[in-house]
Amino acid sequence: MFVAVMGYGTVGSGVAAVLKQNGEAISSKFGCENIQLKKILDIRKFPGDEFEDIITDDFNEILNDPDIKIVAETMGGLHPAYDFVLALLNAGKSVVTSNKELVAVKGRELLEAAKKNGVNFLFEASVGGGIPVLRPIYQCLCANELSEVAGILNGTTNYILTQMITQGASFEAALSQAQELGYAERDPSADVDGIDALRKICILSDLCFGKNTPPDSAVASGIRNITLADVEAAKALGGVIKLIGSAKRLPDGKTAVTVSPAFIRSGSILSVTDDVQNCVTVRGNAVGEVSFSGPGAGKLPTASAVAADMADCAKHFGINRSPSWDEGSGDNIVSGDDYVSCWLVRAKGSKDEIRKQFPGVGFINAPGLPSNELFFVTEEMPCGSVKSKLESAGAQTGSIIRITDY
Amino acid sequence: MFVAVMGYGTVGSGVAAVLKQNGEAISSKFGCENIQLKKILDIRKFPGDEFEDIITDDFNEILNDPDIKIVAETMGGLHPAYDFVLALLNAGKSVVTSNKELVAVKGRELLEAAKKNGVNFLFEASVGGGIPVLRPIYQCLCANELSEVAGILNGTTNYILTQMITQGASFEAALSQAQELGYAERDPSADVDGIDALRKICILSDLCFGKNTPPDSAVASGIRNITLADVEAAKALGGVIKLIGSAKRLPDGKTAVTVSPAFIRSGSILSVTDDVQNCVTVRGNAVGEVSFSGPGAGKLPTASAVAADMADCAKHFGINRSPSWDEGSGDNIVSGDDYVSCWLVRAKGSKDEIRKQFPGVGFINAPGLPSNELFFVTEEMPCGSVKSKLESAGAQTGSIIRITDY
Repeated sequence: MFVAVMGYGTVGSGVAAVLKQNGEAISSKFGCENIQLKKILDIRKFPGDEFEDIITDDFNEILNDPDIKIVAETMGGLHPAYDFVLALLNAGKSVVTSNKELVAVKGRELLEAAKKNGVNFLFEASVGGGIPVLRPIYQCLCANELSEVAGILNGTTNYILTQMITQGASFEAALSQAQELGYAERDPSADVDGIDALRKICILSDLCFGKNTPPDSAVASGIRNITLADVEAAKALGGVIKLIGSAKRLPDGKTAVTVSPAFIRSGSILSVTDDVQNCVTVRGNAVGEVSFSGPGAGKLPTASAVAADMADCAKHFGINRSPSWDEGSGDNIVSGDDYVSCWLVRAKGSKDEIRKQFPGVGFINAPGLPSNELFFVTEEMPCGSVKSKLESAGAQTGSIIRITDY
Repeated sequence: MFVAVMGYGTVGSGVAAVLKQNGEAISSKFGCENIQLKKILDIRKFPGDEFEDIITDDFNEILNDPDIKIVAETMGGLHPAYDFVLALLNAGKSVVTSNKELVAVKGRELLEAAKKNGVNFLFEASVGGGIPVLRPIYQCLCANELSEVAGILNGTTNYILTQMITQGASFEAALSQAQELGYAERDPSADVDGIDALRKICILSDLCFGKNTPPDSAVASGIRNITLADVEAAKALGGVIKLIGSAKRLPDGKTAVTVSPAFIRSGSILSVTDDVQNCVTVRGNAVGEVSFSGPGAGKLPTASAVAADMADCAKHFGINRSPSWDEGSGDNIVSGDDYVSCWLVRAKGSKDEIRKQFPGVGFINAPGLPSNELFFVTEEMPCGSVKSKLESAGAQTGSIIRITDY
């Protein structure tokens, strides 16, 4: 069975490499037809590259080739990825993708198109890179009513926080190091502001709760405000700070979605997920809690997830095996200032004024905590209440960190 | 689509409960036909039970009912489970099971029978209880050449070791406690001697390396010899002791299989897998390392995996989706005394004599280690060499613990 790859960047070139190296093993192990790479789409030229002969800059060579049954989209971004994928599905080809923005924003629509055309749209690589996450949730946990999904979904920020926690590096120093190592972009906003993690938690929310979660209906707060003092305060409380994306079913049927720095107790699996590793934890009414961890990004890990989706499409060509979820405008999403939790707060201000606003609160003392900043844990309340109470107390907010029970 | 359950014990009654509670959600979420429980097989009577009306002691009522398309085998043991399952597959019914002994010993044969009859034989629940492990390995990691699979595969022994590590309980006290809590049988041999874990690592080896691994071709050493002194020595080395099942591809194409107490470094995911939790780690040439963790046993977790397999059978009735592996007599298995590793050894004897046998070895000192026992780490060598060297040194062996790199 012939396949094509669109986008010959990090992931796309990894897919080509994995298909070349493990292609025969895939088909024999998985019992699908042999997968042969026929075309690679990229507007750039790659002189001397081993796949030079099959690289084209003309999308129509893939769209109009009846031999090509499965296409991997590894271009990233919304356009032209969306337009190409929709055209391919409508032409009766199955599509797999590693593009979280595409799935988070256009996933529902593309799944509908796949279903209508009797083909598949699979996207295991869009969350957790090489870690099996989506298929296990969708297939293996299908006998559960799921209540919550949460995880470390961004390797760049996890690397930065790990450097802060284990090496005592400042945020700025850790970010520079991540950039030097190629873990962070020159403009690191999508990672450090939680945008990347937000797309992934929205996909997980779609899948776990069966209703569309538009990324613009939820709010991410990243790790720019996190200081070494926060790391110390978390340590004093017996845990670590991680950037956690979480989606949780509320009793009223709404879904609480957040990406924010979060306190994780020491000894949990999320707490030992370090460096660029990712980890996703799911809670269900029959299984209790299960976790999936491993490399959340990287050329070959991500490519291995893309290639496995291609094998699944090859084995089940003509049988729709993709998940689906209902429409959702985002009006059932609780996020941002409305998100309810206990919070670890750092602020500059008067103890007395803060005590007036947060009655009964105890301040955290630990060696290493700066004397001009106050640390305390609130009762359960909306994030917005924390902010307005701090304002009423005349305090200057340093950081507001969600306390979790993972 | 009508289904049946054979064996109304812990898991079987859990399957009935999960199908009743989440049945409609399963079919709507997963897009399969509604699954309706028609018969339960058990030789016992259950007066007053909510499923009393559909419980039968006659296997033929299931075998000969053309409406029943899928059967869950949750009886355990080899006979009559094997005979029933084979008859059902040959009658064109799909079968799912939580029975690790059946899969470890007869899996290959039953998979062949399923394939021949165009039905499925699935067994996600046989390893790791409710944790998605087998399907993620088989499907999501199919683009990898796998090199190693290892894990904490038995909740009872992990509970005992956790009590020893965190509470300072002796093996005997921890075992009693596990028995009181219902985690351990009155005769705990299958758990504490590693027999249960061995069956599971054999199934993982079958699946990961594509060749049959008969349980009687590999050797398990359990945790009866583990003392609090071993726990202390491991702590001094920066880790913990866990009962680990492992299967590893060797350069000569053979497979090294073992179940043994093992040293795990602190901070790894296996090291924080406590109490009755299980965790499986897999290594592949594209993905690197991924881990799956959660409840490795228990009524509802295991039932949720059985029910998900039933949903998969329902969605793909008539399409063989089961994995397969080649025949293997066990002559390619390296285990027991031939298993090569570095070892943490506890022995009583003369330092000088031990140094003669293990040149250059350093002894471990730590507060809490008994003065009449010696602790040291060997170079890489077969387990049998450790034993014969200790004998040559006139030393009395206490424990031999595998040093791992997980």
